[in-house]
Amino acid sequence: MIISIKLHATRAEIDAVCERIADFGYKVHSIEGEERVVIGAVGTGDVTACLESLEAMPQVEKAVRISAPYKFVSREFRDSKTRVRANGVDIGGDEFVMMAGPCSVENERQILESAHGVAAQGAQFLRGGAFKPRTSPYDFQGMEREGLKLLRKAQEETGLGIITEVMSDRDVEMVAEYADILQIGARNMQNFALLKELGKTSRPVMLKRGLSSTIKELLMSAEYVVAHGNPNVILCERGIRTFETATRNTCDITAIAVLNELTHLPVMLDPSHATGKRSLVPALSRAGVAIGADGLIVEVHPNPEKAMSDGAQSLSMPQFGAMMRELKPYVELWKATRVEEAVTA
Amino acid sequence: MIISIKLHATRAEIDAVCERIADFGYKVHSIEGEERVVIGAVGTGDVTACLESLEAMPQVEKAVRISAPYKFVSREFRDSKTRVRANGVDIGGDEFVMMAGPCSVENERQILESAHGVAAQGAQFLRGGAFKPRTSPYDFQGMEREGLKLLRKAQEETGLGIITEVMSDRDVEMVAEYADILQIGARNMQNFALLKELGKTSRPVMLKRGLSSTIKELLMSAEYVVAHGNPNVILCERGIRTFETATRNTCDITAIAVLNELTHLPVMLDPSHATGKRSLVPALSRAGVAIGADGLIVEVHPNPEKAMSDGAQSLSMPQFGAMMRELKPYVELWKATRVEEAVTA
Amino acid sequence: MIISIKLHATRAEIDAVCERIADFGYKVHSIEGEERVVIGAVGTGDVTACLESLEAMPQVEKAVRISAPYKFVSREFRDSKTRVRANGVDIGGDEFVMMAGPCSVENERQILESAHGVAAQGAQFLRGGAFKPRTSPYDFQGMEREGLKLLRKAQEETGLGIITEVMSDRDVEMVAEYADILQIGARNMQNFALLKELGKTSRPVMLKRGLSSTIKELLMSAEYVVAHGNPNVILCERGIRTFETATRNTCDITAIAVLNELTHLPVMLDPSHATGKRSLVPALSRAGVAIGADGLIVEVHPNPEKAMSDGAQSLSMPQFGAMMRELKPYVELWKATRVEEAVTA
Amino acid sequence: MIISIKLHATRAEIDAVCERIADFGYKVHSIEGEERVVIGAVGTGDVTACLESLEAMPQVEKAVRISAPYKFVSREFRDSKTRVRANGVDIGGDEFVMMAGPCSVENERQILESAHGVAAQGAQFLRGGAFKPRTSPYDFQGMEREGLKLLRKAQEETGLGIITEVMSDRDVEMVAEYADILQIGARNMQNFALLKELGKTSRPVMLKRGLSSTIKELLMSAEYVVAHGNPNVILCERGIRTFETATRNTCDITAIAVLNELTHLPVMLDPSHATGKRSLVPALSRAGVAIGADGLIVEVHPNPEKAMSDGAQSLSMPQFGAMMRELKPYVELWKATRVEEAVTA
Repeated sequence: MIISIKLHATRAEIDAVCERIADFGYKVHSIEGEERVVIGAVGTGDVTACLESLEAMPQVEKAVRISAPYKFVSREFRDSKTRVRANGVDIGGDEFVMMAGPCSVENERQILESAHGVAAQGAQFLRGGAFKPRTSPYDFQGMEREGLKLLRKAQEETGLGIITEVMSDRDVEMVAEYADILQIGARNMQNFALLKELGKTSRPVMLKRGLSSTIKELLMSAEYVVAHGNPNVILCERGIRTFETATRNTCDITAIAVLNELTHLPVMLDPSHATGKRSLVPALSRAGVAIGADGLIVEVHPNPEKAMSDGAQSLSMPQFGAMMRELKPYVELWKATRVEEAVTA
Repeated sequence: MIISIKLHATRAEIDAVCERIADFGYKVHSIEGEERVVIGAVGTGDVTACLESLEAMPQVEKAVRISAPYKFVSREFRDSKTRVRANGVDIGGDEFVMMAGPCSVENERQILESAHGVAAQGAQFLRGGAFKPRTSPYDFQGMEREGLKLLRKAQEETGLGIITEVMSDRDVEMVAEYADILQIGARNMQNFALLKELGKTSRPVMLKRGLSSTIKELLMSAEYVVAHGNPNVILCERGIRTFETATRNTCDITAIAVLNELTHLPVMLDPSHATGKRSLVPALSRAGVAIGADGLIVEVHPNPEKAMSDGAQSLSMPQFGAMMRELKPYVELWKATRVEEAVTA
Repeated sequence: MIISIKLHATRAEIDAVCERIADFGYKVHSIEGEERVVIGAVGTGDVTACLESLEAMPQVEKAVRISAPYKFVSREFRDSKTRVRANGVDIGGDEFVMMAGPCSVENERQILESAHGVAAQGAQFLRGGAFKPRTSPYDFQGMEREGLKLLRKAQEETGLGIITEVMSDRDVEMVAEYADILQIGARNMQNFALLKELGKTSRPVMLKRGLSSTIKELLMSAEYVVAHGNPNVILCERGIRTFETATRNTCDITAIAVLNELTHLPVMLDPSHATGKRSLVPALSRAGVAIGADGLIVEVHPNPEKAMSDGAQSLSMPQFGAMMRELKPYVELWKATRVEEAVTA
Repeated sequence: MIISIKLHATRAEIDAVCERIADFGYKVHSIEGEERVVIGAVGTGDVTACLESLEAMPQVEKAVRISAPYKFVSREFRDSKTRVRANGVDIGGDEFVMMAGPCSVENERQILESAHGVAAQGAQFLRGGAFKPRTSPYDFQGMEREGLKLLRKAQEETGLGIITEVMSDRDVEMVAEYADILQIGARNMQNFALLKELGKTSRPVMLKRGLSSTIKELLMSAEYVVAHGNPNVILCERGIRTFETATRNTCDITAIAVLNELTHLPVMLDPSHATGKRSLVPALSRAGVAIGADGLIVEVHPNPEKAMSDGAQSLSMPQFGAMMRELKPYVELWKATRVEEAVTA
């Protein structure tokens, strides 16, 4: 920790800060400039508590943490990339992963058609929500357990892995029965009761970045799951909220590169929510492959205009097929880079 | 709904849109400009589904809803201000409401001292978290049920109403046993599982605005609670997340005036989280009274420097006392305005 | 400066950083934790250049400035509040200052009617743009010099001070001939060529905060003007750009309290641009007085529906009159606080 | 325009709106729902003035423009991509364009070394600022005309095109003497005096997106230049300001795809300012190529640690070389797509 003291603080006030730091078990290093005193605190202890206590002292101008607040998810803890295995596929490995399917499970025919369609184009996972977080209480809230059963059926027919959302700590166990990957929506990224519960299952978890969450907070939420016992966490950039309204969200694509520096966890991109507009999905998907995401999760619907949700951002089957063909050479370049990195490392 | 059609759309494409609108039970009004066709849809039906279906049609440029997406919480549904009664106090009535207390319940002595202190200065409610949403899994997570019991004890000793946070749908019932008002934190404003559960209790609910939630989304979350059966909802502005880092959050104080136009629900201000800095709390509190909030919820701690969380934004008891005295004439002006409004109405 | 070194940096890499710091004339204080080395640099020198050089070294994780980057505008440079005198009125003094008038000067009748109207209600300054920054090249761009002449005429008739916008360094001299205060619009807050030119005049300057400018950047822009020779700078909060669309901008009202801590310069509030909506202006104005702004700048038009710009946020004359009456007791409280502060100081 | 009327408006109030619309020369189409009246206005006229007048009427809830506010820069005005020719290179054509060089021109040796270095790696343009927009008045402000002369010299030696910033309408003519492309920095994107002046030259202009400017506003600023006479405008995404602090700005990469839909003007990406961190530049550059930018503008310095500005985000020469090699196969894919589009069109 680095603590800067206000100008014109008295010696007694400075000493009080030093004592407080020592109380928390840290060693004090004082740097006295001509104008200002800055104090370094070295050692191990309860950083947050110490920081908050110092910040509450009126003579303290600012107290800043130097070390990262997360541990298990950091590159410093584990240098080589984590591979999260689900339904026989490694996410974070040598294969670019494609998850695709409708926003919501709507009925048997729709989900089976979706599953066969995306499988034929080379997807490894079927996405589809049985529990739907909707801004309005009057909108379709999902088929719940019935939807989960239909996803299971789709898996039996196609062999696709299943990724689906869980919205409450109460439902983790039930959803884990049906899903290969538990998806946590952006609005639940800091639902700490849910995160703790996810630590108790061994099912892989895909954590979507919150609309106004920093990269650091995303890592802290992942740390929750890992610290509570489940190391199988996948991160997902899906756009953040900014002042721009031309797109549904603003894709912070650089976050993928930043995360690849900071963490060993796999990182996916959701170009559908990031843009909210079908026509932009293929271009952003290319960018996602190029910047080094481990995979994409894309909304695809057999009949977007009849979709019960998110039709405007869903690709039709032919559009998805065209995109998969277009992505192929980019995925080849991606693979070559992965192999090269593996050789270098 | 207003639907604008892309330039150069064919007659057949335009007709397809009109048919789709009619399928959803709306009447079609077509406005044909020289360049562009715009279509109005009038009537009642499933607006969201219709909008999403239209937006998924490639010939549609934009589909916009005209009517508000919320109903029960709107001024159009109920013109006069709702009074939410808790522990004998009306929130949204003729009395300015002060809720105060520490961020977390830490131990018996701390919470009792807090309670007696804030009661002596005229607060009607004691705040204090037994379940704490913390960014880091390594930080103090709250005393849970033990904390709730201490709040109860504080109430018995002081008569203060109790407001405390609930973080999971699983805990609603338990917390409702101890609290007069259930507080929903900013990070849970769109925890829809929790909102639905809150609809089942009759305990008043204070809904804090999410860090990146629009005013409309705040109202939609309130609508969830009301539509699921609980009309006793209080809103709270507590700052939103922006690029500015001089304060912990950016207080969108105008939101209070906007909400007073749009909804009949009471609106509180939390100047502690909005600023994150003790020295700014009194000034922002004055502004909150002046703009017409129904009350304040303020962090106060008997010893901020020893607080287990949020010490930097907590007032000490003497500071809280000074602020209450300073606010007095502003509250008098506030009351005069309320009386005047009541007479005019 | 505090420089944190990356984990696993070698001794030679750390030494290189220390040498670089010494090259810039700073003294080095090294704090060696178990995991990490942090270096403090003490002394005086070219901070920015040194910081940028250090940040460019790959072994440096972060380099942070501790001292404020501005000097003349800080409270540390001058503790007592600056009074900027214009047309015989002190801004930043014991009197609450009201500037009012239309967005644009449109014609003689409109500006004279505006001037007489706002003067009658107690305003001390007339606002009105002769040069208009408009998003579209097809919108009314202002009457330019003709408009300035009309403002002069309004001053002759009413005695009001004149505040009007200057948009280019080329026009500073001309506008300064006619105006008592030169207004710099939000979009020009970091037009450094303009800021430098403003340093050469002695006319007071009102600097509006940029849409995405931090409080620190606003102070840095003020520092430009002062450092180039003109100490008569007034700051103005007018709302920042966020994700919220219910209002035209988001008023960061707390910025006023923050600025009052950091700088001795006067701070105004523009509730018209901050909200974009007439009905919200009186409530936000009350809040502005209560939080301690030195004055308000408000859009008022004799006939808002016929205004050539910003009609939706302009008050009519009767509305302005009503607001002035409503503000009166708040201004009384404001004055009492000023007197008290003066006595204490 | 679509105008929605407030609930409970009287017939007379609605009629007044219709008359106002007719006064502006538009035809009125009224859509009367059960609850609400919505009015469409069709025709041509002064849209902004009409909108603002309507918004100022108290019975109007919202008035929305349907047609785009820009004309010359839209795809509807010109379907095929504009090629802006500078120093013999087409920007927006079949060749991917690379602009590279230091943040500032610092001295002869530095700029010549930079020029030879980036030319050797295949760049077509040399970037380098002679006028520097700096947040602090105490930081290096650029070599001004001396710097321009050094750029000219670098051009003579290498044949590279020159792109450099102009900050004031006063300097347009002078900078245009030396530069092949005039760069407008993010903070000047809405410096309308400057934009108008740029309309008078025939030199190509590269307009960087403002930190808080929407895509629409960027297009409006381009429209200023084109409407004032200069059609040679290049757009540039360089990151916007959001709450995220892990990167200097947040690259809105999707904006490139959106702009490719909305405008025929070329679009560049600046990965250096978008990230602020050297290590992220190559990854983001790959994404920029993949999403379909027309080129990149990258900061490169012969000795980043000695750079007078932006060292942390500048690549060294070997790093730039490595990046150019890495980008090669992505650029090949980019070219194949361009050819394909040309054939299809």
